[in-house]
Amino acid sequence: MANIAKKVSWSGRGDDRGERTPLLNGDEEVKYNRQLSGGGIFHIGRLSTVDLEEEITPEEDIVRSRPKEIPHNEKLLSLKFESLDYDNSENQLFLEEERRMSHMGFRCLEIRRWVICGLIGFLTGLIACMIDIAVEKLAGYKYFAVKLNIEKYTELGGLSISLILWAVLNSAFVMFGAIAVAFVEPIAAGSGIPQIKCFLNGVKIPRVVRLKTLVIKVFGVICSVAGGLAVGKEGPMIHSGAVVAAGVSQGRSTSLKKDFKIFEYFRRDTEKRDFVSAGAAAGVSAAFGAPVGGVLFSLEEGASFWNQMLTWRIFFASMVSTFTLNFFLSIYHGKPGELSSPGLINFGRFDSDIVQYNLYEIPLFIIMGALGGVLGALFNIINYWLTIFRIRYIHRPCLQVMEAMLVAAVTATVSFAMIYFSNDCQPLGQDNTEEYPLQLFCADGEYNSMATAFFNTPERSVRSLFHNPPGTYNPVTLGVFTLAYFFLAVWTYGLTVSAGVFIPSLLIGAAWGRLFGILLSFIASSQSIWADPGKYALIGAAAQLGGIVRMTLSLTVILVEATGNVTYGFPIMLVLMTAKIVGDYFIEGLYDIHIKLQSVPFLHWDAPPTSHWLTAREVMSSPVTCLNRVEKVGRIVDVLSNTSTIHNGFPVVAHTSENDEPGIICGLILRSQLIVLLKHKVFVERASSRLSQRKLQLKDFRDAYPRFPPIQSIHVSQDERECMMDLTEFMNPTPYTVPQETSLPRVFKLFRALGLRHLVVVDNENRVVGLVTRKDLARYHVGKDGLEELHLAQT
Amino acid sequence: MANIAKKVSWSGRGDDRGERTPLLNGDEEVKYNRQLSGGGIFHIGRLSTVDLEEEITPEEDIVRSRPKEIPHNEKLLSLKFESLDYDNSENQLFLEEERRMSHMGFRCLEIRRWVICGLIGFLTGLIACMIDIAVEKLAGYKYFAVKLNIEKYTELGGLSISLILWAVLNSAFVMFGAIAVAFVEPIAAGSGIPQIKCFLNGVKIPRVVRLKTLVIKVFGVICSVAGGLAVGKEGPMIHSGAVVAAGVSQGRSTSLKKDFKIFEYFRRDTEKRDFVSAGAAAGVSAAFGAPVGGVLFSLEEGASFWNQMLTWRIFFASMVSTFTLNFFLSIYHGKPGELSSPGLINFGRFDSDIVQYNLYEIPLFIIMGALGGVLGALFNIINYWLTIFRIRYIHRPCLQVMEAMLVAAVTATVSFAMIYFSNDCQPLGQDNTEEYPLQLFCADGEYNSMATAFFNTPERSVRSLFHNPPGTYNPVTLGVFTLAYFFLAVWTYGLTVSAGVFIPSLLIGAAWGRLFGILLSFIASSQSIWADPGKYALIGAAAQLGGIVRMTLSLTVILVEATGNVTYGFPIMLVLMTAKIVGDYFIEGLYDIHIKLQSVPFLHWDAPPTSHWLTAREVMSSPVTCLNRVEKVGRIVDVLSNTSTIHNGFPVVAHTSENDEPGIICGLILRSQLIVLLKHKVFVERASSRLSQRKLQLKDFRDAYPRFPPIQSIHVSQDERECMMDLTEFMNPTPYTVPQETSLPRVFKLFRALGLRHLVVVDNENRVVGLVTRKDLARYHVGKDGLEELHLAQT
Repeated sequence: MANIAKKVSWSGRGDDRGERTPLLNGDEEVKYNRQLSGGGIFHIGRLSTVDLEEEITPEEDIVRSRPKEIPHNEKLLSLKFESLDYDNSENQLFLEEERRMSHMGFRCLEIRRWVICGLIGFLTGLIACMIDIAVEKLAGYKYFAVKLNIEKYTELGGLSISLILWAVLNSAFVMFGAIAVAFVEPIAAGSGIPQIKCFLNGVKIPRVVRLKTLVIKVFGVICSVAGGLAVGKEGPMIHSGAVVAAGVSQGRSTSLKKDFKIFEYFRRDTEKRDFVSAGAAAGVSAAFGAPVGGVLFSLEEGASFWNQMLTWRIFFASMVSTFTLNFFLSIYHGKPGELSSPGLINFGRFDSDIVQYNLYEIPLFIIMGALGGVLGALFNIINYWLTIFRIRYIHRPCLQVMEAMLVAAVTATVSFAMIYFSNDCQPLGQDNTEEYPLQLFCADGEYNSMATAFFNTPERSVRSLFHNPPGTYNPVTLGVFTLAYFFLAVWTYGLTVSAGVFIPSLLIGAAWGRLFGILLSFIASSQSIWADPGKYALIGAAAQLGGIVRMTLSLTVILVEATGNVTYGFPIMLVLMTAKIVGDYFIEGLYDIHIKLQSVPFLHWDAPPTSHWLTAREVMSSPVTCLNRVEKVGRIVDVLSNTSTIHNGFPVVAHTSENDEPGIICGLILRSQLIVLLKHKVFVERASSRLSQRKLQLKDFRDAYPRFPPIQSIHVSQDERECMMDLTEFMNPTPYTVPQETSLPRVFKLFRALGLRHLVVVDNENRVVGLVTRKDLARYHVGKDGLEELHLAQT
Repeated sequence: MANIAKKVSWSGRGDDRGERTPLLNGDEEVKYNRQLSGGGIFHIGRLSTVDLEEEITPEEDIVRSRPKEIPHNEKLLSLKFESLDYDNSENQLFLEEERRMSHMGFRCLEIRRWVICGLIGFLTGLIACMIDIAVEKLAGYKYFAVKLNIEKYTELGGLSISLILWAVLNSAFVMFGAIAVAFVEPIAAGSGIPQIKCFLNGVKIPRVVRLKTLVIKVFGVICSVAGGLAVGKEGPMIHSGAVVAAGVSQGRSTSLKKDFKIFEYFRRDTEKRDFVSAGAAAGVSAAFGAPVGGVLFSLEEGASFWNQMLTWRIFFASMVSTFTLNFFLSIYHGKPGELSSPGLINFGRFDSDIVQYNLYEIPLFIIMGALGGVLGALFNIINYWLTIFRIRYIHRPCLQVMEAMLVAAVTATVSFAMIYFSNDCQPLGQDNTEEYPLQLFCADGEYNSMATAFFNTPERSVRSLFHNPPGTYNPVTLGVFTLAYFFLAVWTYGLTVSAGVFIPSLLIGAAWGRLFGILLSFIASSQSIWADPGKYALIGAAAQLGGIVRMTLSLTVILVEATGNVTYGFPIMLVLMTAKIVGDYFIEGLYDIHIKLQSVPFLHWDAPPTSHWLTAREVMSSPVTCLNRVEKVGRIVDVLSNTSTIHNGFPVVAHTSENDEPGIICGLILRSQLIVLLKHKVFVERASSRLSQRKLQLKDFRDAYPRFPPIQSIHVSQDERECMMDLTEFMNPTPYTVPQETSLPRVFKLFRALGLRHLVVVDNENRVVGLVTRKDLARYHVGKDGLEELHLAQT
């Protein structure tokens, strides 16, 4: 099962290492030096001993011999994911550079950061604009063709041909999108929001911010939306913005092998993260016309340390993004200078005079929020089981493409059937905004109202539900539509296509919300306040979306900004809060479910509350592979090449620990730094000859970032193995350390607040006794019976 | 000067200690063991040596002998302010308690937190409601009386009597307010926003969150607003909310000597800060009807670590607050259930159809933003000099009261003169919303338009400027009004009355903004888009407020929420951004100026960029007074009683440092903990007899929080001085430590992100060599010529 999970994981076609060693402590060649308390049961208070020889207790032996005992995929924590390093390695090179820089130099850097944020916003806005226009054109052609066909056959009586035409068109669009995603870049599947959440959290998801991913993402979104799937193009904008940010801020593209030699200062994880936050915010901003919402999204999902200047820059990127989109779309719509399309989705204008809410409606809103929470949880539960099914059985790219095509065809068929069997005819008014009114079997001058919901891009359908005058839809139509679209949307999310879940959620919610509003007006038909079902559609949409994604503050602001009216702020907050509380009772939010299913070592905001029992001693990995300040090249190469323990950070100690006594910590060096050193052959013996050569600079490390070559690609001759390497200048001389007795929450707080990758655990005399990494902390989580420990697996 | 500064400082009548020792290293008895590089010149790279004997270099000696050399008040950093401890002391008692608590227990705690936040919101809303009603009633009576009087004397020709009546009424109101503030609780002066900023930053401002402060604040605000000063009641709401939060969350009032025995778990700085954030947010929310803006304000000004659950709770408090206010005010206004007053200030309804903005207006907005920045900077500069003047000369309470009364009288006189000399008559329309239209010398059926601006509470004037139809004001009226009100507002801010600067800023900005709009329509009268000066009034108001307070994201959201219309979001952002950039070029924001003038050790978001030169070794205070794990009571008492070095945290070391060698760190204990231990006489010798007594619990520490008795009040007999105290159980065994070579930015980041109070600096073998506290970090800031160091003074 672990293998299967790998197959369809975000990063798709992984290397082969995982296949051979499906499990940590599997009985093959892996000898992980981790203390794993046996068989799924969690022993509290069991102390790991500092010992270089690995003790294998009988209990552990049993665990090793039964790798199939893993109860469930989500109880695993994958070792595949590495961490990003949001703590600067303040080695001598870095400090020298910083000290050389004048006050003016820092000013220039700051200005460059602003320029980059402006660029990020501009490009994100452009991409959003492009997607919007492409989708509109393609969907327009499709609906036009199908409409003509339907009109032609309505009287002739061969509507099954129209159905086939529709289904084939949809499937074809989706096929292109799915093929691109499944065969070229599997990471581009879905909305990308869980991946960006992980990135901002500090987990390195392979290939997530590459140019190729962006191209496939954009292409995939256009195909899947034009293909009529129950998806939106808003979620993927966040991923797109993030990729743009990661690309622009680095001033080069590794995929295109093009280095512009600019922004070199920003080539490290810390700076990149800040820009990716800005990119994600710009994406939200372009998607919903919600610049403040975008900033809040970035902060809520990503940031741990709130920095005013950074926030302000993120805000700038968001503003530029929505402005760019607005500007170009207004030109495209032939109304330059009017700036009426701030986002991809436009909720339309809510006139606050008409649809004021009243005090006695608040309980109704709360009920709707609870309903949204329940329906959202149902959505998540079904999608969860579906995802498990997909992980088990649908893991070949061609199967994935076929599933996507099947869903497209089914979507078309269901839509068609529902349009066909509904006889909800509405008069075609003068101010009708429908672009493709279908007459079908209605009288002349009327149109089929079910068709407005299905025969349209989802964005337009949402708008119709919000704004069409009372009486446009009949309750049965809405009920059936809700049911059908709910299941289509559940099925669609998780397909191997690029697509978001925001719009389908809003659509489902708007449909049942409007239904709710109509039913209310049946109950108390005398009161004019009930007359506007559009308001209830909006509240329902908020409730459903909140129930599915469980975002809080940011979603409130996004919805308020998209509505363009603050009046609804309070009800939307209430509804989202209720939906979250009710939904959380059943299951987590959709994004968290998918993060968990991928076994990502995601760090939440706080350590589990009941984890004061645990101390750094129990949590840490030990023994630690340490290096000496001046170390033999051969040993370094051996340590790096050791495939069984792929460590990325090595404490540097003051004297050798030959007598098994741990050394005193004097620094921390990263695998990537060692590799650059080996590549440039910075050996002590060559120091004299190196006087003629240039000294190794920070630039050399930056040039290699972020794709450091593997150790295998570096050739070290037998002579060189005997040389020595002086790490003093390159190691981080002041890594953060904690004593062994530190409680888990305290370790967690330090680790999370500073965005660390390695935290050295020392004893009283500053001797290294262990190392805490992300996986050591992410293992612990609150389950039903209190604290649980996840298993580490090589999936 | 230092003495004088103390006199009028926020905390007012301080203890006498400061008077005797005006300066650190003053030539009296103080022997601070701090390394102070001499004479205002900042020596980079000078290392302090670890030495128990104090070396006095000749250079330093010179500094000591000339305490009057301090160039300027703002170049000082006061030693008076202590730090709050936002890092839990995880000693054995704490860990035992946490470990005893079940999962259910943590759930209950969480629910209790929500309940407290709800209470905070409710009470804050109630207080806002009370202030609003009181001000409206009092101001109503006043205006009614003056209006009658004016009408009576307009024809008789004795208007000077009206003027005197008005001035006396105003002065009387203000006198009551000023007396309360100046004589009873000086900390209640001003808006309280700088103080709350400091509190959230981690600086302990004495008496800032006490019940007495709240009472005086509320009373003072009512008096000063009713007294017709150029002030608003919005700013103080933030302070009021914070006090409510601090009170409610502790479940007791020390002032009232009432302990409800609830919420005892929350009696520590960490938890209190979280609730105070919520209170401040609730205050903003009640003031402006801006719950999201409130949350952002709290985060922007206070939080460093963004926690999702905390944010959500803050949001809840904000929502409850605005809802409560809305609910009660709607009842008061006789329209229960309509919920039309979400905040104290109501910008009125902006109808988005009419006042849409256009692309070519954006450059105009940017110009207005720049203008706002310049005017805001001018405001701040004048107020800065005025504050310096006040610090020097107006430091006696009676002088302060007299100044406040003078300002009140002058305000009335200026207003009266301007109404008298203006002949801007406007027809009294049917839909006129003026409550007190003054006819004066206008024809029947007309009213004096200048009077609408002056003869009104500022909130109403702002609303009139935003919404009155074009042509209501003539340009000269607006110009003169702007000028007069600008100087009145500058003069008023900093008086010893409780009052905010938000509304006057908005009013000034709205006036010149409207003027700007009218002038535009003169230039291009043909275009109807210029026709609405209300829009420009809004933009001007934003520009002016942004130019003065320099808040960013939160202010945008607050203004958007107060406007009730997202359409203006983008222009408001643009304007605020421009105003901030332009304004920052000249001088800091108003709150920051006042924080600086009080010499508060305020920690900004980041360390100064050019501070990589400095390491922990140079920054730290050394030598450190350490205690042994088992220490003699006599020594502890001596250390605590030492008035020359008032330390609050003591590293606990493993073995005695008799041979002048620093000991190995094994914990950190706080002054407050030691005092509780001494009070309960927790001596080793009594351990046997204590078996019968109960063991010291965390509860004992909580009961003493936050007003721990001074050491002088604890009697220790000569016999007891020979006893020993075992600190093991009570010290924090895992304090954060950094090596000596750590760079200042790195130290800063750790300190700021975790909200520390003491950071122990250790050498390679974990021996204590120094201690970094807030003052050591706040000393460094970026001046005009790069990095500057502030002097520490005992002001």
